[in-house]
Amino acid sequence: MNKTSVEAYLKEKIRDLNDWPKEGVIFRDITPVLADPEAFGTTIDAMEDALKDIEFSKIAAVESRGFIFGATLANKMKKGFIPVRKPGKLPYKTISESYALEYGTDTIHMHIDAVQEGDKVVIIDDLIATGGSSKAAATLVEKLGGKVTSLVFLIELEFLNGREKLQGYEVKSIVKY
Amino acid sequence: MNKTSVEAYLKEKIRDLNDWPKEGVIFRDITPVLADPEAFGTTIDAMEDALKDIEFSKIAAVESRGFIFGATLANKMKKGFIPVRKPGKLPYKTISESYALEYGTDTIHMHIDAVQEGDKVVIIDDLIATGGSSKAAATLVEKLGGKVTSLVFLIELEFLNGREKLQGYEVKSIVKY
Repeated sequence: MNKTSVEAYLKEKIRDLNDWPKEGVIFRDITPVLADPEAFGTTIDAMEDALKDIEFSKIAAVESRGFIFGATLANKMKKGFIPVRKPGKLPYKTISESYALEYGTDTIHMHIDAVQEGDKVVIIDDLIATGGSSKAAATLVEKLGGKVTSLVFLIELEFLNGREKLQGYEVKSIVKY
Repeated sequence: MNKTSVEAYLKEKIRDLNDWPKEGVIFRDITPVLADPEAFGTTIDAMEDALKDIEFSKIAAVESRGFIFGATLANKMKKGFIPVRKPGKLPYKTISESYALEYGTDTIHMHIDAVQEGDKVVIIDDLIATGGSSKAAATLVEKLGGKVTSLVFLIELEFLNGREKLQGYEVKSIVKY
């Protein structure tokens, strides 16, 4: 499949739910993609294709949905996997970064030994909305001396301008709304 | 590698952290396994091997660490993936099940269309402790008319007797403490 047909195929599988988590929002539910081995496989293959010219040795992903795609891709491409987690979840020493939500802030953590000086790291997530959590994950990689060589998302909500927050990074997405 | 060498190899990779999350507990930190593509690959291969004689079309896993292994294995074995989640996370209609924690209870949810009558489902997680969350996940599968044909864990804490709670199910683990 070419990129346009992959996008159309996956849009058929993604379930649009109106007014969730609140009125006026259309939520893009990826669980039907995950339930279908062909659709899930197509997604992983498309992410792998998006990274075919990128140098990297590790994939970082923010919990929870990021783990689904990040870990699967890491195993398939034989790269290391770095779980980026909510406060209180990682058992070893961590560094943390906060980012703005619509109301308030959220904080994510990374183990201090997850990235070594000079490591090339890719960040994977199911969705880019405002880009806050991805930007924070990239900052954590850089604080430890790593370089973020690409960010790849299954879904991009273009009207939320997440790419603006990620200027200077290579950003790719498979399905755009 | 045979099963004994896989277990010894992975025990070398798992990091033992004393007194986390509280005094007297040894936490088995799997992040070094994930960081190492060979160790992560060995884990996934061992889980695949544990399922070689099992009939199933779907893998269910409880967030967040369960997603890492469940989704990776689902993609590799071309099975459907079912995310089982904390309250308020799944956007479509759900059923839920509560289970006891040391203090209080926790509740997990599954989309009502995640399992169809007669589906054979495997449950994957990184760790079996008391077995509460796995038993609750199995109950959710059964409430929707599915059958749990096996449960596979990377780590089993045998002194917590999680298997007792899962009597009647086929339970396998790769690394035992």
